[in-house]
Amino acid sequence: MFILEESVKEGSGISNSTECKAKQGENVTVQGFIHRIRSLGGANFIVLRDNVGTVQVFVGQDTPGLGRVKEGYIVEISGLCKTEARAPGGFEIAADKIEVLVAPPEEMPLTINKNTLNLHLDIDINNRPITLRHPRYRHIFKIQEGLARGFREYLLANGFTEIFTPKIVGVGTEGGANTFMLDYFGKPAYLAQSPQLYKQMMVGVFGRVFEIAHVFRAEPHDTARHLNEYVSMDFEMGFIKDFKDIMAMEVGCLHYMFGLLKTEYAQHIGALKITLPDASKIPVLNVREAHDLVRKHLKEDFRGEGELSAREEQLLGKVMLEQYGYDLVFVTHYGSSVRPFYSMDDPTNPEETLSFDLLFKGVEITTGGQRIHDYQQLVDKIRSRGMELDKLHHYLMIFRYGMPPHGGLAIGIERLTALLAGYDNLRYGCLFPRDMIRLSP
Amino acid sequence: MFILEESVKEGSGISNSTECKAKQGENVTVQGFIHRIRSLGGANFIVLRDNVGTVQVFVGQDTPGLGRVKEGYIVEISGLCKTEARAPGGFEIAADKIEVLVAPPEEMPLTINKNTLNLHLDIDINNRPITLRHPRYRHIFKIQEGLARGFREYLLANGFTEIFTPKIVGVGTEGGANTFMLDYFGKPAYLAQSPQLYKQMMVGVFGRVFEIAHVFRAEPHDTARHLNEYVSMDFEMGFIKDFKDIMAMEVGCLHYMFGLLKTEYAQHIGALKITLPDASKIPVLNVREAHDLVRKHLKEDFRGEGELSAREEQLLGKVMLEQYGYDLVFVTHYGSSVRPFYSMDDPTNPEETLSFDLLFKGVEITTGGQRIHDYQQLVDKIRSRGMELDKLHHYLMIFRYGMPPHGGLAIGIERLTALLAGYDNLRYGCLFPRDMIRLSP
Repeated sequence: MFILEESVKEGSGISNSTECKAKQGENVTVQGFIHRIRSLGGANFIVLRDNVGTVQVFVGQDTPGLGRVKEGYIVEISGLCKTEARAPGGFEIAADKIEVLVAPPEEMPLTINKNTLNLHLDIDINNRPITLRHPRYRHIFKIQEGLARGFREYLLANGFTEIFTPKIVGVGTEGGANTFMLDYFGKPAYLAQSPQLYKQMMVGVFGRVFEIAHVFRAEPHDTARHLNEYVSMDFEMGFIKDFKDIMAMEVGCLHYMFGLLKTEYAQHIGALKITLPDASKIPVLNVREAHDLVRKHLKEDFRGEGELSAREEQLLGKVMLEQYGYDLVFVTHYGSSVRPFYSMDDPTNPEETLSFDLLFKGVEITTGGQRIHDYQQLVDKIRSRGMELDKLHHYLMIFRYGMPPHGGLAIGIERLTALLAGYDNLRYGCLFPRDMIRLSP
Repeated sequence: MFILEESVKEGSGISNSTECKAKQGENVTVQGFIHRIRSLGGANFIVLRDNVGTVQVFVGQDTPGLGRVKEGYIVEISGLCKTEARAPGGFEIAADKIEVLVAPPEEMPLTINKNTLNLHLDIDINNRPITLRHPRYRHIFKIQEGLARGFREYLLANGFTEIFTPKIVGVGTEGGANTFMLDYFGKPAYLAQSPQLYKQMMVGVFGRVFEIAHVFRAEPHDTARHLNEYVSMDFEMGFIKDFKDIMAMEVGCLHYMFGLLKTEYAQHIGALKITLPDASKIPVLNVREAHDLVRKHLKEDFRGEGELSAREEQLLGKVMLEQYGYDLVFVTHYGSSVRPFYSMDDPTNPEETLSFDLLFKGVEITTGGQRIHDYQQLVDKIRSRGMELDKLHHYLMIFRYGMPPHGGLAIGIERLTALLAGYDNLRYGCLFPRDMIRLSP
């Protein structure tokens, strides 16, 4: 038996490539992959790729270990860290010694040390276990981390509680279609399409709750905008005055998230040349105003539809950006028939709901709205849709014993990540995408 | 069209029960559920339960609205917040006005305003949508939030990247048994038993990664210690010197997590009378030493077994606490035959692995270890187990093109939550448990 204490990190002697910047004039040791080797008239330059980034290493011809290394090798390099104006970041390591930690059996079959990966998306995804080693993906998925982190930090600071709700459920959340079915010890079960019913239950407990978790949609659409499994950032809040409270919370949350990216993820935002949208003010228009605007500026007529088609979303995004200078726009009052049963109808016009979508660059990134909190009103709406009350027994309990006015929203993290990074296809915002034809890697 | 800006929170005029403490001498407005009403010789006391806790409200006989309220109603109360030594927390609100926001159609069928819930666990779980409104559950699940938050904060500060990996997979992670199967557009698919293979892939990208997400185990065991769906806090780290680096990281992480509970969740720790374990130093013994210790102190002989049974874990926990004063203990070097194929065998004794469990109060809360990083060694082990190499094609890519020495661990959040809160049955640490017989609520 021995006693283990927290490791003293300073004692490990290994620096990462970012820390080296502050260690010019000192001897450092770094560990990582050999990202690139260049020979330039007797001098050799190694770009080392480690946990946090890359660093240039100058290697003289006589440096011990030089002869044994190749691109892709995993090494430890010791040397003097010094200022060097011609190196990226303004410094480099002059290697004293290179030690091979792991010599891989095969050379990379793809080039990951050029600026772009330049692969057909299918080939990229088929090889994601290694194409993700391209630095561009590091930037994209650090930004994804920043989005999740910002979402949580803002909501925790605003009185929300983080919850974890079941993903295997006995009843489809959003109605019967498009759910994955599984065998649960001999009984049929489903994968949750959203945490909707559970987050509403938890409003009765904590008032304000959020969850970041996987959701599953068996939608048979193989498009750039669909994934059959994605990560949903959900929140739900009680004691609202009206549904604008939810949108206002999202404005604050997105503003905070983009602010966090600007400060703590500046390296990645810069590397991808991303211009972050201004989320401090977001315009709001209802579906009818959206139709009118698209008709006025682009002469396409969508009047009479209670929602926006993907094409109209795109056109509206174009108008809002070109005519008004906004990347983001809320669209409200979607038709009652196109929104789920729990949506609250507008008391002044029951054909419409107190709901909204948020569009970013003409693509929907959020769906939200106020929910029905009155028991009888909810029962009536469920009946009017021909749904079975029995199956919703546990959900209905919370209304029978009292629920405050409430609502919430969901943001798909892959979509937001991909759009920020400049991609139309949201498979660029998902490490290992699941679509109709893809169960691996 | 109008422009929405971040809501000015100070402007809402609603205080929560915690904020009231600092507003003695001021008029406040609060919103919440009527948790309890007591009448005491002409005076009435309401305990209001809101998003963050409870507050006592004094209500004179003539206060407008008093006659209309009942326990369970959702109300808005305005009044003077004043010092009152006899009230919990040392203050109360003297109500000027009570407004009913929602009058629920039915009275609560269960008592949630006594100190204990006092229900058979089955009845409790069947009614979780409303039993969770008992303040005891608020404390338990705020602590759960604190554990997740602490895990993330510590790892982010130590160079880890948060990742999101697929839960629908084409291959069972930990071998074929005990996986839930589903139909994925006509193809068989499985629910991930762990993010193991994916987090290893991501070590090749970010070096250090973590994920908090659901995992799914179709284990046909209906015990206090099993759930068929739970939330796993996973990390995986590269460039380790040996597997003690992983345990040392866990020591630091748990120490931070419990420290966060002690400071930011003090109210909940106090309410549940929890004594947090000291995680700054954790003893480590191997399986053989564990057998010896249990035999020496409790005269039960488990020698010859490569792992610890649930009963031996319990006995070892007892010995470590009573003889040495430790709540937590690492057990290392589990037998190769009882650990998954990716576990690294001890080079000095291939019958054992460089693996560990962490026990808390005699119950396993973590499984971890070093993984094989050498391609050929891994291929040989997979073959020796009669597993199909083809199915692991994408996983094997990362080793073919180079992986650093690495390892990691997984902590089940429900188990840790329940044990901290003093429960043997981990269903007390899960909002909506999934077990062999339970798919709802």
